[in-house]
Amino acid sequence: MLNSLGREIPEYIEGIGKLEPFQGALTKLSKGWMDEPTIPAPNKAYLPHQSKLCNSLEEAILRSNPHNGMTVSFHHHLRNGDILLVQTLTILHNMGIRDITLASSSLNECHDPILPYLEDGTVTRIYSSGIRSQLGRAIALGVLDIPVVIHSHGGRVRSIHTGKIQIDLTVIAASAADCEGNATGSHGKSAFGSIGYAVIDARYAKQVIVVTDNLVNFPCIPLSISQNFVDQVVVVDSIGDASKIATGTTRITNSPMDLRIAKLAADVIEHSGFFEPGFAFQVGAGGASLAVAKFIREKMKTKAIKGSFMLGGITSYCVDMLNDGLFETIFDVQSFDATVSNSLLNNRRHIEIPAALYANPFNCGCITNKIDVVVLGALEIDVDFNVNVITGSEGNVRGASGGHSDTASGANLTVVVCPSFRGRIPIIKKRVHTIVTPGESIHVLVTERGICVNPAFPELEANLKRAGLNIKDIHDLEIEVDKITGIPAPLEYTDKIVGIVEYRDGTIIDVIHQLKEK
Amino acid sequence: MLNSLGREIPEYIEGIGKLEPFQGALTKLSKGWMDEPTIPAPNKAYLPHQSKLCNSLEEAILRSNPHNGMTVSFHHHLRNGDILLVQTLTILHNMGIRDITLASSSLNECHDPILPYLEDGTVTRIYSSGIRSQLGRAIALGVLDIPVVIHSHGGRVRSIHTGKIQIDLTVIAASAADCEGNATGSHGKSAFGSIGYAVIDARYAKQVIVVTDNLVNFPCIPLSISQNFVDQVVVVDSIGDASKIATGTTRITNSPMDLRIAKLAADVIEHSGFFEPGFAFQVGAGGASLAVAKFIREKMKTKAIKGSFMLGGITSYCVDMLNDGLFETIFDVQSFDATVSNSLLNNRRHIEIPAALYANPFNCGCITNKIDVVVLGALEIDVDFNVNVITGSEGNVRGASGGHSDTASGANLTVVVCPSFRGRIPIIKKRVHTIVTPGESIHVLVTERGICVNPAFPELEANLKRAGLNIKDIHDLEIEVDKITGIPAPLEYTDKIVGIVEYRDGTIIDVIHQLKEK
Repeated sequence: MLNSLGREIPEYIEGIGKLEPFQGALTKLSKGWMDEPTIPAPNKAYLPHQSKLCNSLEEAILRSNPHNGMTVSFHHHLRNGDILLVQTLTILHNMGIRDITLASSSLNECHDPILPYLEDGTVTRIYSSGIRSQLGRAIALGVLDIPVVIHSHGGRVRSIHTGKIQIDLTVIAASAADCEGNATGSHGKSAFGSIGYAVIDARYAKQVIVVTDNLVNFPCIPLSISQNFVDQVVVVDSIGDASKIATGTTRITNSPMDLRIAKLAADVIEHSGFFEPGFAFQVGAGGASLAVAKFIREKMKTKAIKGSFMLGGITSYCVDMLNDGLFETIFDVQSFDATVSNSLLNNRRHIEIPAALYANPFNCGCITNKIDVVVLGALEIDVDFNVNVITGSEGNVRGASGGHSDTASGANLTVVVCPSFRGRIPIIKKRVHTIVTPGESIHVLVTERGICVNPAFPELEANLKRAGLNIKDIHDLEIEVDKITGIPAPLEYTDKIVGIVEYRDGTIIDVIHQLKEK
Repeated sequence: MLNSLGREIPEYIEGIGKLEPFQGALTKLSKGWMDEPTIPAPNKAYLPHQSKLCNSLEEAILRSNPHNGMTVSFHHHLRNGDILLVQTLTILHNMGIRDITLASSSLNECHDPILPYLEDGTVTRIYSSGIRSQLGRAIALGVLDIPVVIHSHGGRVRSIHTGKIQIDLTVIAASAADCEGNATGSHGKSAFGSIGYAVIDARYAKQVIVVTDNLVNFPCIPLSISQNFVDQVVVVDSIGDASKIATGTTRITNSPMDLRIAKLAADVIEHSGFFEPGFAFQVGAGGASLAVAKFIREKMKTKAIKGSFMLGGITSYCVDMLNDGLFETIFDVQSFDATVSNSLLNNRRHIEIPAALYANPFNCGCITNKIDVVVLGALEIDVDFNVNVITGSEGNVRGASGGHSDTASGANLTVVVCPSFRGRIPIIKKRVHTIVTPGESIHVLVTERGICVNPAFPELEANLKRAGLNIKDIHDLEIEVDKITGIPAPLEYTDKIVGIVEYRDGTIIDVIHQLKEK
């Protein structure tokens, strides 16, 4: 069957189940009340004055009813410094557990050591918002029989509370925790900031293990994760490589091209009609994004505009803007560097939020629904403004859905910033290889070669033209870039589906086919 | 059928369903994993950038699908100053809605105006932790055909998440809220402190209306209730009578008898074996309880003992002890006076907690499970240490289960303080009229005429005797008091059951029969 973007979606996939085709960004939401039931959270009970402390992660896992076919979940707040996911899967592998569904909020290069477990049947299914590095390559080449499911951060919450992902065991890394499992990421030697992605796992997992390298006196404040959801507590020497938790993505680019894109994007925002007192703003940490924040900060000061809130993955740059009084509040579902933890812990206007509140489409209104302006990146974008942030030009799975489609669907102005080509490969395509965010959610594309406005938003285009900005038709830009780079030979794929891309509402927006190895 | 305390419990009650007899305070808990399923939370969805603001409570209720047979819930954090419960039921009555189940976390004198709605079939069922005044009298006399269900604060959470109480509409009074429904009780002209009882309602109710008299800029901090659970927001002139929100229960008694009881109780605690550095303490606001805190405070200073946490209904006296450095932390599910709000808002070691974390028996460990010492009151106590806190000597329903059985079951030392008689009616009975908390959870009774230790705890008795405290056998004390007061003529009851008392695990610990009117 075809979805509304013309992508062929199978009706059923063995090991996944029935698929529902994507029908538009707001189609399911606009029904208001959902038919889809949620699942009940587990019922547990413990006697008073019992200890939850275990001697080792092995012991805790052994007590948590490990079994073939189980689903194990993790958060990725330690980013590329995480070590617990590999440790946990190694323990399960050594116990002889097979057919595991891995449900991590994202996967990074640091998780490459689990590749043998994909090859040997220890792990047979993966749900994640992102997959990269050797894992991404192996998945693209078909290492798993069952396609991986790529979800957004908001979609992950929906998947868990509707039971598409039913977690048997979650292992939650915490930089501070007490003997009852009250836990946080906001202080301790391995502080990583917000623990927002893990909250839904703690609520729904049949077994919850908190692992910390910093056992503090009861109670551990703040109660980012609270004890009533935690079955066991394990103290280890280290939950991760702290030097890699803050990966340095938050330095503002020096690249002249990125700075040019960022400046253009800031001009777009300024003249969009949404750069008004009280505006809400989200910007990522990569490439040109943070530089956009820099230029917006200057414009806010110049025009004496004070915003309402910043949202999302939070960098120290956001914290500086909060402290400057440029925004009232930060909502933090994920922190991108160590200095952020200190603000999260000590500034009451820097608020830790769970992923449900951040971006779940199926509740009474997540905060992404209130964004005015979001700046997002792209691996590819096509002439219909559909964006790919998951598969690379060489065909590997190498990115993350993350909050891309969540924020894009909620924002009044979604700005995609990217170079028009990278390494002589055009970024603007007739058709992106994999759609993660539908073009209807993208208002404007900003490249170093010009600004393209989605024709669905003529008022925006008029505003920008009135401000003297040079607007190009995206089809013209696509042809212009093709002339520079030439059109690369298409990659070759088999009929096997190795990944499905869930839209945030659970419908399928695209599938990823197996790459033919050269 | 008889429960384990020898009370006759019907197997089934029309309008309530099958009943499970009480089998012991920890019997169900000790099974560990519960068979009883929980219910799924509702699935909702709203489009971005929509307004939740309604012009009036009427309009919000009209939009919330009011229907015959619906369940409407409320929190009682405004105590005797609440006006929204009466307003809401009046609106529903005027709409012609009938057969309503009223599920309020408690009911006070201020709710007497709903009595006509019990008489005319607008309200046909009540779930509450407490009922008092004219309502309590009318219920004792049989105004409702279906018995009211009395639950504990922890039991209420269990009832909601297992679906015994399925809430169609919850109306949440908030002293501050924003346009999205983020809400708190910790600031504003009608500040009432913790909003901990309402959190479970917000999570499970099909429709959630936040009502405030203090609409603040987005976001309302702290997010005690968060917007993803709130359907509608209503701004009114007043959510309640602020002068009655703080009822002045927190003044320390001047009564010589209460002071004598309190001093004895403090001596008991001091020599119990649990008055140690790091001990956790809960004490109520009524009668002698707060005076116990006063004496304990002095003993802590004298002995240089620093405790871990105070829990529960929090008074300004608890806040003083926190500020004195006598305890590390306060966990606050309910605040008893206005000055508490300021501490809750500004002191990070004064932590607002939901009722689930406070006392729900069916999770990975509520905080009542960690109490060392709790001081509780009683309307009656019997020679088996069973405690009645719900029916008065005149036969009316006039009290509250509250956190009584929750804290008693968790504490290492449960001290009941009460006078041995009130108004020439003995408080110590051969058999209490209604059991709320089983004797097995009560370690010691302290009256002005002496201290009685539950014989199930011989080590405690030895500790107290070693300290020179005068310990009486409770049977002897009962006879002694009877000699003073005489034995009052027994009240007369019919066979009709007007109330059932749920133990915190959902089993039935007692029933209340209809009082024969004189």
